[in-house]
Amino acid sequence: MMKSSVTVNTESAGIDAVVVTEHESDLRKYMEKLRVAAGDSSYASPESAVHLPSDDTALADMQKVIAEKTGGNPPAHIVVIGIGGSNLGAKAVYDALFGHYDALEARRSSKMIFLDTVDAVLLEKTSALLSEGSISPKDFLIFVISKSGGTTETIANAEILFALLKARDPDFLERVIAITDNGSPLWNIAHEKNIAALEIRKNVGGRFSVFSAVGFAPLHAAGIDITALREGAQEMREACLSEAIRKNPAMSSALALFVGLKNGRAIHDTFVFNPALESLGRWYRQLLAESVGKEKDLNGNIVHAGITPTVSVGSTDLHSMGQLYLGGPKDKITAFISVQGAENDLLVPSERVFSDLVPMIHGKSAHDIMQAILEGTRESYRKNGIPFIDVSFPNISEYSLGSFMQWRMMEIMYLGALMNVNAFDQPNVKAYKEETRTILERL
Amino acid sequence: MMKSSVTVNTESAGIDAVVVTEHESDLRKYMEKLRVAAGDSSYASPESAVHLPSDDTALADMQKVIAEKTGGNPPAHIVVIGIGGSNLGAKAVYDALFGHYDALEARRSSKMIFLDTVDAVLLEKTSALLSEGSISPKDFLIFVISKSGGTTETIANAEILFALLKARDPDFLERVIAITDNGSPLWNIAHEKNIAALEIRKNVGGRFSVFSAVGFAPLHAAGIDITALREGAQEMREACLSEAIRKNPAMSSALALFVGLKNGRAIHDTFVFNPALESLGRWYRQLLAESVGKEKDLNGNIVHAGITPTVSVGSTDLHSMGQLYLGGPKDKITAFISVQGAENDLLVPSERVFSDLVPMIHGKSAHDIMQAILEGTRESYRKNGIPFIDVSFPNISEYSLGSFMQWRMMEIMYLGALMNVNAFDQPNVKAYKEETRTILERL
Repeated sequence: MMKSSVTVNTESAGIDAVVVTEHESDLRKYMEKLRVAAGDSSYASPESAVHLPSDDTALADMQKVIAEKTGGNPPAHIVVIGIGGSNLGAKAVYDALFGHYDALEARRSSKMIFLDTVDAVLLEKTSALLSEGSISPKDFLIFVISKSGGTTETIANAEILFALLKARDPDFLERVIAITDNGSPLWNIAHEKNIAALEIRKNVGGRFSVFSAVGFAPLHAAGIDITALREGAQEMREACLSEAIRKNPAMSSALALFVGLKNGRAIHDTFVFNPALESLGRWYRQLLAESVGKEKDLNGNIVHAGITPTVSVGSTDLHSMGQLYLGGPKDKITAFISVQGAENDLLVPSERVFSDLVPMIHGKSAHDIMQAILEGTRESYRKNGIPFIDVSFPNISEYSLGSFMQWRMMEIMYLGALMNVNAFDQPNVKAYKEETRTILERL
Repeated sequence: MMKSSVTVNTESAGIDAVVVTEHESDLRKYMEKLRVAAGDSSYASPESAVHLPSDDTALADMQKVIAEKTGGNPPAHIVVIGIGGSNLGAKAVYDALFGHYDALEARRSSKMIFLDTVDAVLLEKTSALLSEGSISPKDFLIFVISKSGGTTETIANAEILFALLKARDPDFLERVIAITDNGSPLWNIAHEKNIAALEIRKNVGGRFSVFSAVGFAPLHAAGIDITALREGAQEMREACLSEAIRKNPAMSSALALFVGLKNGRAIHDTFVFNPALESLGRWYRQLLAESVGKEKDLNGNIVHAGITPTVSVGSTDLHSMGQLYLGGPKDKITAFISVQGAENDLLVPSERVFSDLVPMIHGKSAHDIMQAILEGTRESYRKNGIPFIDVSFPNISEYSLGSFMQWRMMEIMYLGALMNVNAFDQPNVKAYKEETRTILERL
């Protein structure tokens, strides 16, 4: 599979020369910070996640642990217990490559199962699946991922699933790997009980952690090519550290979102024209929402800043949201995400059942039809003055996914700088967590 | 399973007495229209979808066709080819009851497969699944659903799938049912070629069609209890035709959304606290977006009106969107959707692996933990002055799903009246469709 990066085109995104001039010195100053962070193996700054794609030590540690557990053979099932930043990245990559058709293909291996919220039905079905006669009862691996090491849902899911499995196999803990901050409560218990554990570096926040063990360990265990993910990320990182703002994918898209916001476009729609990429849109949803959705700016002023991310799937959502997007409020800026290559494409046959219905699809391929719908949509957006970023995948591969994710993470860092907010914290979520704990303690 | 309706509580939704007084006469006037439409078997008005739950003739016609095809035995696979209003309703019901764990349970029957956008990978996998050795090659039913009878994606998907199936079974057309407007191009070809067909009434728009053959036929074929769906809808319809605004679920939630919008809250988040209900949120997403997202009002003024719907899943999205919701812009009004009952609940065991981690979950059930998180979230919303509607399902059943869907459809009709827009058309989507056709013809 060819190794080429996604391309990001901001021609129709509403960035003019005045805006570039106004912000270029700030953007370049921030870029220097990112350059330092990219090379800093001590993970000293909040930006240090940009070092992850070239952290060979972390990679080797992770590969060693996985090799010990699997002997190099991907198990039939990989269960990822984690929520938010602890599962969205791995899920985005898995779903893009395989997961989007999991319901249609029962016997493919490895299958990944993601348990995030606490749901008795899903826990029961997962336990039943892991214990099925047709697969070896040892043929699975469970990851318990929590940066803080004390996430309510994650610990509850793990305990309930463990109780279900224990009845069938007393040695199941040999197939569990914890991923958490060094020194967290989970880290300490794992070491006490001889459960394998991998580290998340302190300054790598959950939503920026996909290229750490958080994303790499379960994907690698499932046989997915993380070397290509890293390479795609590295190539993109170079592009996002280049001087020319308009040619720098992360700077230019950050600027597009910033300008959009100034013009009242506080909703950013990630419009993926391929159902395989929906989970990737959801991974980005967290990244954008939590990074720049802030009550206070860096100077402590109350600003209630933020951009609300949405994910649409083309062409599906043209039939459910199109009327709103084209006729409704001018409050959105869009990123169209499409895939150029189409292996194993299929044709509308020339001898048809519904002979003269929609005659223009005669002999066209599935891919051609989708490309035409996308181009028709772009044309309508242009005519309606709706700004958009145009993102193109050469194909869906580990390499292109790595480059996409690196682009978006660096975009968000630049955007935080432009908006003058801390892109790395989440102070307001403490509130509901404390309320929840109080309620649970009363029960 | 108990037959009780969802409850809708708008106490925290920001509706005050002044607003009720201001709008009550308009709302009651519109209610009279809905009352007439509910009893009108001629489907004369744009509101006539409210008659569907009591249309016994349409029901009997549909049941007859399905009985002929299945002999009363739900086939292993039901394929629904349709997009937007042609598949979102059936998918919402199926996913709530079974579909959300389809990837975890390979052998359950019937399974429903939804093909909406055109994707070669999904078409190939679907064809392979229908032709698998383990199931009878005749053990499936395919619905081709298009109101206009000429939806590009739907016809393309049907033709490509048919071509794949024909090679394996020349009689496959016997297991196809078309659902479309009487007299549409698809209707005419189906009759020419002796393909079974069911009718959609002219005045029933796609997004309001779930209680017509569009939703009922595939669900009934899959063995889902559509009688209970209808009964739930009928009970809710009565409640939504009652005088007291604050006790009328549809009037009061419409008013809440309208007041929210006037106060700058142009995003409506459907926050489902149960992963089974995510597709139901997506069904509503179309309903809200397309019905009130309008360039012009009823007087022809350019207004660019609209509310952008989002769907969040609790507690998952508290970890991906919570910071934005609590700290970010005050541009949202939320509906929390939760489920009271929990059959087959599971407990966090008292003898635990991660002994002292998150001690307050000791011995609590999955359902208790989720309820505590929801209540913690509500409390945070109240403290932050974020308005919300509180919707409670007694359980997830056909009856409660029917009542929820009827509530939301009538809410949207009332909301259209309050916003002075036509809730039943979608004039702006023509634009991209015409662009697309031109591009396809050039290819």
